[in-house]
Amino acid sequence: MARRGVSIIGIGSTPFTVMKERSIKDMATDACNQAILEAGVDRKMIQALYVGNYIGGILEGQETIAPLIANSLGLNPDIPCTKVEGACSSAGIALRQGYLLIAAGVYDLVLVAGVEKMTSASTEKVTMALSAGMDPETDRLTGLTFPGFFAQVARRHIKEYGTKIEHLAMVSVQNHANSVSNPRARFREPTTLEQVLNSRPICDPLKLFDCCPISDGAAAAVLCAADRAHEFTKTPIDIVGSGQATGPSCLYDHEDLTTLPATIRAAHQAYTESGLKPQDIDVVELHNCFTIAEIVDSEDLGFFPKGRGGFAVEEGLTAVDGKVPINPSGGLIAKGHPVGATGLGQLYEVVRQLRGDHENQVQNAEIGLVHNMGGSGTICTVHIVKRRG
Amino acid sequence: MARRGVSIIGIGSTPFTVMKERSIKDMATDACNQAILEAGVDRKMIQALYVGNYIGGILEGQETIAPLIANSLGLNPDIPCTKVEGACSSAGIALRQGYLLIAAGVYDLVLVAGVEKMTSASTEKVTMALSAGMDPETDRLTGLTFPGFFAQVARRHIKEYGTKIEHLAMVSVQNHANSVSNPRARFREPTTLEQVLNSRPICDPLKLFDCCPISDGAAAAVLCAADRAHEFTKTPIDIVGSGQATGPSCLYDHEDLTTLPATIRAAHQAYTESGLKPQDIDVVELHNCFTIAEIVDSEDLGFFPKGRGGFAVEEGLTAVDGKVPINPSGGLIAKGHPVGATGLGQLYEVVRQLRGDHENQVQNAEIGLVHNMGGSGTICTVHIVKRRG
Repeated sequence: MARRGVSIIGIGSTPFTVMKERSIKDMATDACNQAILEAGVDRKMIQALYVGNYIGGILEGQETIAPLIANSLGLNPDIPCTKVEGACSSAGIALRQGYLLIAAGVYDLVLVAGVEKMTSASTEKVTMALSAGMDPETDRLTGLTFPGFFAQVARRHIKEYGTKIEHLAMVSVQNHANSVSNPRARFREPTTLEQVLNSRPICDPLKLFDCCPISDGAAAAVLCAADRAHEFTKTPIDIVGSGQATGPSCLYDHEDLTTLPATIRAAHQAYTESGLKPQDIDVVELHNCFTIAEIVDSEDLGFFPKGRGGFAVEEGLTAVDGKVPINPSGGLIAKGHPVGATGLGQLYEVVRQLRGDHENQVQNAEIGLVHNMGGSGTICTVHIVKRRG
Repeated sequence: MARRGVSIIGIGSTPFTVMKERSIKDMATDACNQAILEAGVDRKMIQALYVGNYIGGILEGQETIAPLIANSLGLNPDIPCTKVEGACSSAGIALRQGYLLIAAGVYDLVLVAGVEKMTSASTEKVTMALSAGMDPETDRLTGLTFPGFFAQVARRHIKEYGTKIEHLAMVSVQNHANSVSNPRARFREPTTLEQVLNSRPICDPLKLFDCCPISDGAAAAVLCAADRAHEFTKTPIDIVGSGQATGPSCLYDHEDLTTLPATIRAAHQAYTESGLKPQDIDVVELHNCFTIAEIVDSEDLGFFPKGRGGFAVEEGLTAVDGKVPINPSGGLIAKGHPVGATGLGQLYEVVRQLRGDHENQVQNAEIGLVHNMGGSGTICTVHIVKRRG
């Protein structure tokens, strides 16, 4: 297929924090309105809406949110409005649907959004809800939760490659340092290695500060056919590669617990489509739901050899001024992780980086990568975006 | 955009009935395997999976089902697997995603499925779960449920057009008569007008037999680029028109309660794309979640003038041997309504009609229409399918 170029012409985001008083519809409408206003597009010209959301049904009793948001926004009722779900990669999937359908010539203008409301429920209920992303006949049956899954990944990574507990803690410290300047972040205080190492155990070897916080939030983007982007903006950001792939849905199907193959597969698609390589990427927002995930993802995305992700953090390679700046936003660990919103929250941060107006700016960032994962590595999207010439 | 033709080359369905012992994954895997085997396609060649599901999160605590089903089927892990949700039109949306992406040249072979598990929960819990398709800030806040919404539609239709209670009952009698021969149907006993009229009130004027039953089930189809369909089957069924549109998400936004504008909009898209008119359609499966919905839908789809839908049933026009055969399967009323599966269950029935091997066959059916609706007319898909040559 001959694909058309696709550009991001407007972005919007609520903070990722605790917003008990706001509904799913309200937060999503807010982020979408920001994106529409920034794009300067007449909302009646938008031709489709895709919304990512994961556990709105279980926690808020709310499904069918896409048309609700569309009506709240005042979009044209002739257009299709669809919710997509793939656990914590739901917003990445929404982005990809919009991208694919513009690239293929079906639409010129698509609004994509992601949203989640998590903090009104008890921690126990949220943990139960999140386990909806596991297979009830295998992992969930054993009582395994996502902290348990990633704790096993950490243990294996430590055993195989000599990764240290301190490496995990350094990831947390760096993400918390990065989020200090990010007004969208849930946590804006720096932490120390000692604080992280002394935080209470969640699932050995993961401690509280190794885990992302339960959060509320929404993010959105207006996508446009690249050849029409200049009608709306002087600074279009082009999507130059997109991938979505599947991984094992239970622990015993993972051949090697130190790698999440859905990431490798999705990244391969995005790199191939863009003709770019890991060393071409200037800034990365990756799915660090736990500190070990940042280490594993940075290897699976090709930035470091397998086993070297933790050492790369220690060497400062992933700092904002490092060779491969990872999660200058603070990532899921410190910015927050409203699960169905995260993929587009990551895109928001990278677009701001490529425009050169991020609060924690990577110098001369021209090409960015967004990595969004769901389940125990069960589903993954990767997008590569580029500032236009 | 120059669109390619898209064909259905294989279909599968479980019964739509009570299957308490079967999981969402199990039912969907079953329907998908039937479709794959019937298509004679190597499952590793399938390039994407879309799964429609509505309340699996709320009732079964199960999200992220698309990759779970893909792994259960043994699909290629390099492919994207995505759940889509739009209340009771979730499966219609899955069908449309596959259609669009093949039509646009992104994929050649896509598997689409719909599934729902409803009978393990209490009636109260199912009613609460279904209300997730309503706006919690308007209709749901008032305590309105879907039987309540459609009861108001019925009252208004009766007042405006002289539709009789007996017309509603005739819809039920006809659907129950149709499902007697359908081995996939939940109810296979004929009913009488007296039985329907004397069944217990649910929400006046709707009685028990005016309402579709809570059911379990799954349905699936393998879609293929039309120019490759003959590699797999001698009887491809082409999708010649597709529409998806949005309607009001609360009662007070309906200007006229006797019509559901999302149906009119989606049908307009499908008729325009296909170049066909209502009078070209030989067989229809439409979304009769309540008897009044069949009457309203048959008008909104253009088969009868507004207000004449009930009289058309009385005159036999919608019978299997009538001018516009509607729901020869028994429809949602008598075949059953596992909400997230229904749209592809309807497609299954129409494909069997166009192949000429349905248990309740419409003579010489060449062109069929499938109408799938979600919420209180909030979201709708319409597909027109045609037997080749």
